Amino acid sequence: MREVAVIGMGQTPINEHWNVSLRELAAQALHNAAFDAGIERPDALYVANMLATRLSNQAHLGALIADHARWRGIEATTIEAACASGGMAFQMGVRAIASGMVDVVAVCGVEKMTDETTSSITSGLATASDADYEGAHGASFVALNALIMRRYMHEYKVPHEPFGAFSINAHKNAANNPNAMFRRPITQAVYNRAPMIADPINLYDSSPICDGASALILAPLDMARSMGKPIIRVLGSATATDTIGLADRANPLALEAATNSAEKAFQQAKINRDSIDLFEVHDAFSIMAALSLEATGFAERGCAVFQARDGDFAIDGRLPISTMGGLKGRGHPVGATGVYELVDLVTQLRGMAGENQVKDATIGMTQNIGGTGATIVTHILGREA
Amino acid sequence: MREVAVIGMGQTPINEHWNVSLRELAAQALHNAAFDAGIERPDALYVANMLATRLSNQAHLGALIADHARWRGIEATTIEAACASGGMAFQMGVRAIASGMVDVVAVCGVEKMTDETTSSITSGLATASDADYEGAHGASFVALNALIMRRYMHEYKVPHEPFGAFSINAHKNAANNPNAMFRRPITQAVYNRAPMIADPINLYDSSPICDGASALILAPLDMARSMGKPIIRVLGSATATDTIGLADRANPLALEAATNSAEKAFQQAKINRDSIDLFEVHDAFSIMAALSLEATGFAERGCAVFQARDGDFAIDGRLPISTMGGLKGRGHPVGATGVYELVDLVTQLRGMAGENQVKDATIGMTQNIGGTGATIVTHILGREA
Repeated sequence: MREVAVIGMGQTPINEHWNVSLRELAAQALHNAAFDAGIERPDALYVANMLATRLSNQAHLGALIADHARWRGIEATTIEAACASGGMAFQMGVRAIASGMVDVVAVCGVEKMTDETTSSITSGLATASDADYEGAHGASFVALNALIMRRYMHEYKVPHEPFGAFSINAHKNAANNPNAMFRRPITQAVYNRAPMIADPINLYDSSPICDGASALILAPLDMARSMGKPIIRVLGSATATDTIGLADRANPLALEAATNSAEKAFQQAKINRDSIDLFEVHDAFSIMAALSLEATGFAERGCAVFQARDGDFAIDGRLPISTMGGLKGRGHPVGATGVYELVDLVTQLRGMAGENQVKDATIGMTQNIGGTGATIVTHILGREA
Repeated sequence: MREVAVIGMGQTPINEHWNVSLRELAAQALHNAAFDAGIERPDALYVANMLATRLSNQAHLGALIADHARWRGIEATTIEAACASGGMAFQMGVRAIASGMVDVVAVCGVEKMTDETTSSITSGLATASDADYEGAHGASFVALNALIMRRYMHEYKVPHEPFGAFSINAHKNAANNPNAMFRRPITQAVYNRAPMIADPINLYDSSPICDGASALILAPLDMARSMGKPIIRVLGSATATDTIGLADRANPLALEAATNSAEKAFQQAKINRDSIDLFEVHDAFSIMAALSLEATGFAERGCAVFQARDGDFAIDGRLPISTMGGLKGRGHPVGATGVYELVDLVTQLRGMAGENQVKDATIGMTQNIGGTGATIVTHILGREA
């Protein structure tokens, strides 16, 4: 098995990009990444996207984007696993290189959500859950997450207020990220008076509807070394699934696919969780940040919220999370998010995170969650000394 | 690089399955394939699908189908490249095993098209082409293919009538395939009087709207040998892309991605085209069968139609095509088609094709086309002596 390295990264700012098309967003991120890597053209392109078929009437993004990026002819396809599409596309890229069948792979996450009506977007997001047994009964995606959050509050006797710590941390970090959607810090008072979206999830418990594209260039480790680029190695890449429907889980707070994919990734990387210097969590809702931290062993069950309040997950805390703003502050263009998480991690491992730099960041982890936890992809990357 | 073998196959009949849900169709094909392979549970599941997000309000098919197949927990994702989704998913499966990171992979193609209105299906299929520059102007997918066919007829001075040979051959072969949608032969007279769909494409130039699921189980070659199963090796697996829009091609009849992916696959397999005993072509429209045969060097430019009329592509011809009925006779559940093509090829290589058996079939090829040729995946499989 060939080892794999990340040799380039690129992104567009996350925003409501009404004046830029889907293919153009993707090409911007890809060209930034290719320039960063110093390559003209990859051998293959894996596009992560969830909603273009519905919201832009466009399937077949692999060929579309390869064509628009002026890479006509290369192998290209779309990978979809709801909000975990980005992590999955990266994993397919790692496999392609590891197999020896492809040398240079571009992975691009792209999502354009804001051209459509809110009701179209809400219906689109509901396709991440069980269409027949959840969506058809009117359960929106935020409603399902609200059920989980309510259960957590009941089970562990946690009030609503301390959940704000995740949002406050994310917005604080986003303020220093030029690519983030929300660049202003918020306070506990602001969180407390935010309107409810789906009780108990309020506006600041939720990530935004937005547009954006992010990209990474992967190459065999040996090739990367010969190019004299800063080398970020892929140490672990693992996926696990769970029931698609929330009602089918013995414990809806367990997030078993997070535990299982993280365990596999730790084994592949031959490290334990103490070696992780930062963790890009999938904080689409503050409850998911809490569950992800607990399921992967970085917080005790029922305690992540309080650890967040105590500063454990701040840039200078025990385990920094959402270091460039996370899904909450940087933004959550759904199919692109997994690639943004990895771009943020590479930014940290290269020491390019500016005011948000995690000191001596050597090994970091990302976790990308599809649906209410039905698909979870964990990646561990490390800077070569 | 680990070599890869197909150790199991399964399918549902192709039809209008109004009484069977998407997930159930997929599970039926997967369980048939797993039983055939003698395995309980794969390590990963790659689902090929194009339209479920639109037509069934369901994304996230990887986790959904893994769950419904009672394989909860395994790695799973969806691969989409319009009508080439099936071939791409198989390629991702081959790569995963070749990388050494996964042992047993299930590949499932599934599409459920008939639950929706014809106009929804037509709009859905148009997402395979360029939404902004083709679809938005009202060009349906069949209309784009009609432009190509008209150009072919003009360029090579070919009348409409001889195109019927592809359809007659496909229906003849489908008649002996219990899983085919259309099990009755047709005559030239029937073809000649068929209603036009989009001039010059008539009813018998077009494959049907339908539902179906197909599946294959892949394993490392060494593991396959130790299981004592009939071994079908993956000798070549290659993808190439072209412009997404038809108007951007220097020659819309060239089908360059067919030429390029076939050349790569021949190189990987270390064979030339004379070694190919049968060829499962992507005859979504009779014009595409002609272009595919010409672009891969099995027919002279402008001559495939006449070679078909002369019987070159019949079961006992020089190069049998569409041996179990092809997309025209067996059916074309779009995202599932690439996997059906491979199932048909494995059926032939195992000598299980009954009255349609190609004598001494040892090496065969499939070609799976997305859009009007923007993504083309070529596979070459061989029976181990």
